[in-house]
Amino acid sequence: PETKLPKVGTTIFTQMSQMAAEYQAINLSQGFPDFDGPRALLDAVGHYIRQGANQYAPMTGVPALREQIAGKVATLYGRKVCADQEITVTSGATGALFAAISSVVRKGDEVIIFDPAYDSYEPAIELNGGVAVRLQLLPPNFQVDWMQVKAAISSKTRMIIINTPHNPTGAILSAADLDQLAGIVEGTDILLLADEVYEHIVFEGEHQSLLSHDVLYPRSFVVSSFGKTYHTTGWKIGYCVAPASLSVEFRKVHQYLTFSTATPMQLALADIMRDEPQHYLQLPTFYKAKRDLFCSLIKGSSFQFTPAKGTYFQLVDYSAISDLPDTEFCLWLIKEAGVAAIPVSVFCETPPSMRLVRFCFAKGDDTLRSAAERLVHL
Amino acid sequence: PETKLPKVGTTIFTQMSQMAAEYQAINLSQGFPDFDGPRALLDAVGHYIRQGANQYAPMTGVPALREQIAGKVATLYGRKVCADQEITVTSGATGALFAAISSVVRKGDEVIIFDPAYDSYEPAIELNGGVAVRLQLLPPNFQVDWMQVKAAISSKTRMIIINTPHNPTGAILSAADLDQLAGIVEGTDILLLADEVYEHIVFEGEHQSLLSHDVLYPRSFVVSSFGKTYHTTGWKIGYCVAPASLSVEFRKVHQYLTFSTATPMQLALADIMRDEPQHYLQLPTFYKAKRDLFCSLIKGSSFQFTPAKGTYFQLVDYSAISDLPDTEFCLWLIKEAGVAAIPVSVFCETPPSMRLVRFCFAKGDDTLRSAAERLVHL
Ligand SMILES: CSCCC(=O)C(=O)O
Ligand SMILES: CSCCC(=O)C(=O)O
Repeated sequence: PETKLPKVGTTIFTQMSQMAAEYQAINLSQGFPDFDGPRALLDAVGHYIRQGANQYAPMTGVPALREQIAGKVATLYGRKVCADQEITVTSGATGALFAAISSVVRKGDEVIIFDPAYDSYEPAIELNGGVAVRLQLLPPNFQVDWMQVKAAISSKTRMIIINTPHNPTGAILSAADLDQLAGIVEGTDILLLADEVYEHIVFEGEHQSLLSHDVLYPRSFVVSSFGKTYHTTGWKIGYCVAPASLSVEFRKVHQYLTFSTATPMQLALADIMRDEPQHYLQLPTFYKAKRDLFCSLIKGSSFQFTPAKGTYFQLVDYSAISDLPDTEFCLWLIKEAGVAAIPVSVFCETPPSMRLVRFCFAKGDDTLRSAAERLVHL
Repeated sequence: PETKLPKVGTTIFTQMSQMAAEYQAINLSQGFPDFDGPRALLDAVGHYIRQGANQYAPMTGVPALREQIAGKVATLYGRKVCADQEITVTSGATGALFAAISSVVRKGDEVIIFDPAYDSYEPAIELNGGVAVRLQLLPPNFQVDWMQVKAAISSKTRMIIINTPHNPTGAILSAADLDQLAGIVEGTDILLLADEVYEHIVFEGEHQSLLSHDVLYPRSFVVSSFGKTYHTTGWKIGYCVAPASLSVEFRKVHQYLTFSTATPMQLALADIMRDEPQHYLQLPTFYKAKRDLFCSLIKGSSFQFTPAKGTYFQLVDYSAISDLPDTEFCLWLIKEAGVAAIPVSVFCETPPSMRLVRFCFAKGDDTLRSAAERLVHL
């Protein structure tokens, strides 16, 4: 019998991290920091484990954590959300994205996504019988062409997936972009899914959350991630904020997808949010220094790039170095230069005209220096 | 627009645990221990966190943990499985069940499940466009009627979901049952999903894993849970063992459902499996004492029961106490007796002829005594 996901192989992040390990390359492919989160956060997990917080968290998430999230949403985005009814803690942002899509996308529904698109969106849409309608972000700055979005809307359009700050391009949506989107969806039933996992990692301009938009939020699932914010990608704690009516549907799926996520980590995250809000407020400075270091180090190389506006990824054009397609270039880069990157074409239906790969700069400065040393000579 | 899961409300476990908290009842509803796992296990998590094991685990799970699982499967069930290709660590058994179902059930496919059936099976089937064909376990001992299974097979049958030891009834399948199942599926394309999360909690006879059956394993996803085995339900670490060809499909979904699960917990579990295999070998004795205590304490009550053969649940018939339907009886029990239980009808398409509720006896002896004191007078 035919398989459920014929187009899907092993996710590129697993492939590249495995190859990086195999060839002992510096791994700037899969996005994760090689440094730890706040000491108090790490210690708090051990504390809660010793205290016996080892049984199921409430299905929607630990109340103290949902309260902290609600507080942050109010402070940063000026929206009062109900911690009980509008916030659900999930098994990472991946779990939130899957639950959001599964809770509303039906057979035959169309979901608009933008290439390059994070690789989990389309399989989730397809598993639910939906169809991904892939539009292209406009090079060189990867902006949304709102006229094109408008033209792509049909009676079958169920959802539009927005990702800002954008992985892998580092682009961010502006307030004007959100207003354009509002103009398009107002008066329709179209739902929105906003992947905002890099919300605290923005260097130019301000992050525009769908949470702060009065027209958009009432039809949105807004997804974020503690892994990105607290340098704990391996804990797999994320969350979804959505109006009560959407959260009800979201939770129907979430409860059977994973039910809940690690209790001691949730409690520890609630404490750190309460005790050290400056942590995420300082992230832009922290990561901008890394972006600037990496960019300055590879400035003399043959890679071409515009510094990322957000995320901890830097996109580079390698066309002055090689004619290889990007996946092959990445293999070559691992084997010959000892640096692992992510090819951008895997996120696209039609490969982009530019030859692009993505480097993760969420690494110690020495690691970035070593990687750059290997890259400048190419 | 119509919702995706019109029949689904909030899972009974969340409802009952919430009510128990509200009325300060002794919570014997949702299944979780009120005691901790081995000290060394708890300490190891803190250790790995301090060591910096806070980034993504490999998508398939930490290699050391998969090796330990493979070792256990060889020792206990006599099957050599490949840790790399046949074992995937998941976000709890719930995540494994959802991924297994989603990876193979297509629109229109039929999946046979047995009532009373754990509540996550049917929504997962329905989200994938499949149809749950619900057969009834035969009272009073909740055995499978294999003739009925045979009669229920159609050209659309894609999967049969087996649960042994069985939640909520505590029944276990015998070696003869597995042979009957083999006789039915041999020569067909029918796949099996075995929910064996209580594999180490069996009091009478032996757990018969599909892993040990040469005809069944090649077509099976076998799911288990560290939460049940190590008293850490809140860590949400489970796993699926399946032949390589099925694991490939399983992982395609798993990687987009949650990608991976908490790294420090996985490493700690690998250590405890290596260092203290006697932990799970002693579980039958440990939980049998609890079952026997609880059963002896409520023996003088008006509840009728046969002691559970496995799991940490005891089913009781309350028809000598009340005429209420089981869900209402459970509400009454919380409010009037101060004890929370799980009604069995929520796991059934047609309510069972007996009036049954489920108590969880994975509790400290004092808790069991207090609960029994409240129950004996009813
Ligand atoms: C879940 S592994 C991928 C991590 C990530 O978001 C990325 O590298 O883009
Ligand atoms: C995931 S909450 C339910 C726990 C459980 O398996 C049960 O109580 O039956």
